[in-house]
Amino acid sequence: MPAEQFRKLGHEMVDRIASYLDTVESRPVRSGAEPGETLAKLPTTAPEHPEAWPDILADIDRVVMPGLTHWQHPGFFGFFPANSSGPAILGDLLCAGLGVQGMLWATSPACTELETRVCDWLAEMLGLPETFLSTGPGGSGGGGGGGGVIQGTASEATLVAMVAARHRAVGRARNASESRSVSPAAGPHLTVYASTQAHSSVVKAAMIAGLASGPDDRAHLRLIGTRDDYAMDPALLSRAMDDDAAAGRTPCLVIATVGTTSSTAIDPLEAIGEIVRSHGAWLHVDAAYSGAACICPEFRAAHLGAGGAALADSFAVNPHKWLLTNFDCNVTWTADRAAWTGALSVTPEYLRNAESASGRVIDYRDWQVPLGRRFRALKLWFVIRHYGAEGLRAYIRGHIQLAEYFESLVRSDGRFEVASPRTSGLVCFRLGALEGERPAATDARNRGLLERVNATGEVYLTHTVLPEIPSCPVPRLVLRMALGAPGVERRHLDRLWALLSAD
Amino acid sequence: MPAEQFRKLGHEMVDRIASYLDTVESRPVRSGAEPGETLAKLPTTAPEHPEAWPDILADIDRVVMPGLTHWQHPGFFGFFPANSSGPAILGDLLCAGLGVQGMLWATSPACTELETRVCDWLAEMLGLPETFLSTGPGGSGGGGGGGGVIQGTASEATLVAMVAARHRAVGRARNASESRSVSPAAGPHLTVYASTQAHSSVVKAAMIAGLASGPDDRAHLRLIGTRDDYAMDPALLSRAMDDDAAAGRTPCLVIATVGTTSSTAIDPLEAIGEIVRSHGAWLHVDAAYSGAACICPEFRAAHLGAGGAALADSFAVNPHKWLLTNFDCNVTWTADRAAWTGALSVTPEYLRNAESASGRVIDYRDWQVPLGRRFRALKLWFVIRHYGAEGLRAYIRGHIQLAEYFESLVRSDGRFEVASPRTSGLVCFRLGALEGERPAATDARNRGLLERVNATGEVYLTHTVLPEIPSCPVPRLVLRMALGAPGVERRHLDRLWALLSAD
Repeated sequence: MPAEQFRKLGHEMVDRIASYLDTVESRPVRSGAEPGETLAKLPTTAPEHPEAWPDILADIDRVVMPGLTHWQHPGFFGFFPANSSGPAILGDLLCAGLGVQGMLWATSPACTELETRVCDWLAEMLGLPETFLSTGPGGSGGGGGGGGVIQGTASEATLVAMVAARHRAVGRARNASESRSVSPAAGPHLTVYASTQAHSSVVKAAMIAGLASGPDDRAHLRLIGTRDDYAMDPALLSRAMDDDAAAGRTPCLVIATVGTTSSTAIDPLEAIGEIVRSHGAWLHVDAAYSGAACICPEFRAAHLGAGGAALADSFAVNPHKWLLTNFDCNVTWTADRAAWTGALSVTPEYLRNAESASGRVIDYRDWQVPLGRRFRALKLWFVIRHYGAEGLRAYIRGHIQLAEYFESLVRSDGRFEVASPRTSGLVCFRLGALEGERPAATDARNRGLLERVNATGEVYLTHTVLPEIPSCPVPRLVLRMALGAPGVERRHLDRLWALLSAD
Repeated sequence: MPAEQFRKLGHEMVDRIASYLDTVESRPVRSGAEPGETLAKLPTTAPEHPEAWPDILADIDRVVMPGLTHWQHPGFFGFFPANSSGPAILGDLLCAGLGVQGMLWATSPACTELETRVCDWLAEMLGLPETFLSTGPGGSGGGGGGGGVIQGTASEATLVAMVAARHRAVGRARNASESRSVSPAAGPHLTVYASTQAHSSVVKAAMIAGLASGPDDRAHLRLIGTRDDYAMDPALLSRAMDDDAAAGRTPCLVIATVGTTSSTAIDPLEAIGEIVRSHGAWLHVDAAYSGAACICPEFRAAHLGAGGAALADSFAVNPHKWLLTNFDCNVTWTADRAAWTGALSVTPEYLRNAESASGRVIDYRDWQVPLGRRFRALKLWFVIRHYGAEGLRAYIRGHIQLAEYFESLVRSDGRFEVASPRTSGLVCFRLGALEGERPAATDARNRGLLERVNATGEVYLTHTVLPEIPSCPVPRLVLRMALGAPGVERRHLDRLWALLSAD
């Protein structure tokens, strides 16, 4: 494509995006497309000849737009947000335009070193321990220090933490064994722990890593029960790890969640960390959504405990959820770089180079599942510089105030109940049970309410089922109001509440 | 960021990219940055207050540019290319601007259905069997049909193929067992096969999947020797699988490579496919780079054999390498959707929705490692429509002609030798051994040549070591000339050759 054509189309695309984001509120949040509707608008075979850009651009409106659920709509309260911002879009644009591939330090030193530095920035903003900094002290693995890496998603962070923890545990078992001839098959029976409320990516990672043959296989995976606040019960964790150890198994990894997907419950890191450490296991913290709140000092203790994340071996947060950086951007820090990379490093001749051999540089290919990688640090760099740390804190604080406000609206209406403790930007709520109503009927009324408000097209909420807890023996279907799409304001919550409370 | 500021900065960024790509040839291909040089230009802590865009933009030139190795430079002949194009950059820009997340069909139906259709388009362009089409016949897994998915890299495709093959093999073993109580730990001893020339991602996938405890663990992984053309020797594969089966192990997966990283050797798919089928195993084809050549009918038989990829269970190609679509864009097709998704599917309540439950839609979260996903189909859609199938074929043909031309230059100079059969856009070559010269000395002269030409900054080549083969008992260090960056022309190869042959 000639440069002049690219300039012209590029400007047009930028304008199109600016208009889209400026007017997204006028669209229905959720796509009304039926299964197959988009497919039916597309030819079944590729065009043989080049097509004209007016036709291609027209198809954005004809084919794509009706099939979008608008994640940047201020009425999007579903799942967790996948927020974005101008600076982040510019960063992704520059990433695409430069077209460098940063698998090795040598294949673009700036791609690696900017990422290392920006991850250090964010670690300090979050108040994470200096063991997670690239400039911090040596790691427990003996191989030297910590540092952060940008991956696509928290799912990948969980998977890599799992294989890193396994790598360290198997290595230690080998070293402890008198014979060096222990085969992997005869290695330790490893066990992995997370709460029943941990994200589904924990089970998925176990399936990929070969530690579970399916979603229900519990040969290596233990899902620990929760307290009334849906946070992992440390006493139950301790008992499970002790039982496994007593039976000759090797507790290898605990995944604690700071902000569970269903209800942003916060597993108590300090109590869990002590238990994990007593077993010599790895503690990974999945703070994909709620971790962002830790950039505000006043929310840090509630999320990380008094000891912060000092006992964690790795910690993951997704700026693409709640730090104005568009998808995909997960940052994971490890305090044990040697174990992290040891689990993933395979070096064929065609990737060898003098700088890698010198040991003076980071090759991020060894920190992640794929070999190749984009220059994702650019967007996070732009976001932090455009908003400044203070701007990002203001963004988080604004959303948490909105969540408080929405919670107060729910509490003000006797028909509704707040279904779980609000910890930051998510409110779980529901219509309470009527007198004598069976649980299934209450759930059905809540499901009906969800469908009704979503059908308006003005807002989009999703649901979850909160499991039985000590104080409530029945699982409950609840609605989730998750902040925050970038443009959300108080008036959007007023409208949401008007829709919810209309009947 | 206000819409007006985004428009202005967006236009500026588009212009910057247009200028960069237009003038990239004037820059040194390889960054001259020293380790730590980029880090030293960056503050150690994040800015507290917002920074001004003139400063941020200036830092692109001050911090980023000197630390780039320019993958889009027409003198970039290293590794495999990571090519890009105007339409692809526009597609990634639109992806970032829309900011939708396509984990479920319901979270943006167009994100899923456009991807399904574009993968079908590309499968037909490549001449792949209809079992890989979303509209094709039912799969051997019994669960219904095939289809394609866009992932980030071929490494992820290999990993998912490995867990899908394991899922199918374990399921069959369970069904075959009279007792349903077979525990996973007591499941079959699975074995996986690839050639010694397969990509390092095969070993990495085995480490992640728990089938290897480290790069050298061969408890489950067999690396099969090659013929003189560095392609897998089917006789050796057959023997290895037979031996494993005779010993009670379960051959589960063979990864064949169409276009190895070192030398673009082509494993013979038909012979391998028959062997794989006779063992009831899974055949995955890694055609990350060379697969693109199959869009030209005249190159298809040489790459896929007379039978095409009819015996493959999955097939991966990277449009981000050689189809003008910028990184990251891998397309993988499977003919056994049930096994592919069965290995990865975990469904928590908070992801349930009516459309998924209906079984009428694809949820791509179950086709990949991460949960979340970008709208990557946009860039491939734009590329295919802008160039048309004929334009992409012309692009590939042009590069293969350039590779032929370069090969003829090498052959015309008695000091040089072509080190392996050229199959498409890669030429492996070296200075031949002088009379009586020891192999290490020949390698050293070639390494010296590589360093000299790369030091000019005009070109960038990388090396590999080709292993011993039946006709040559000594491994040899060779230089690789890999096409193609988008702007490469005959004059660039003339200049490359002038630099190489100058001494």
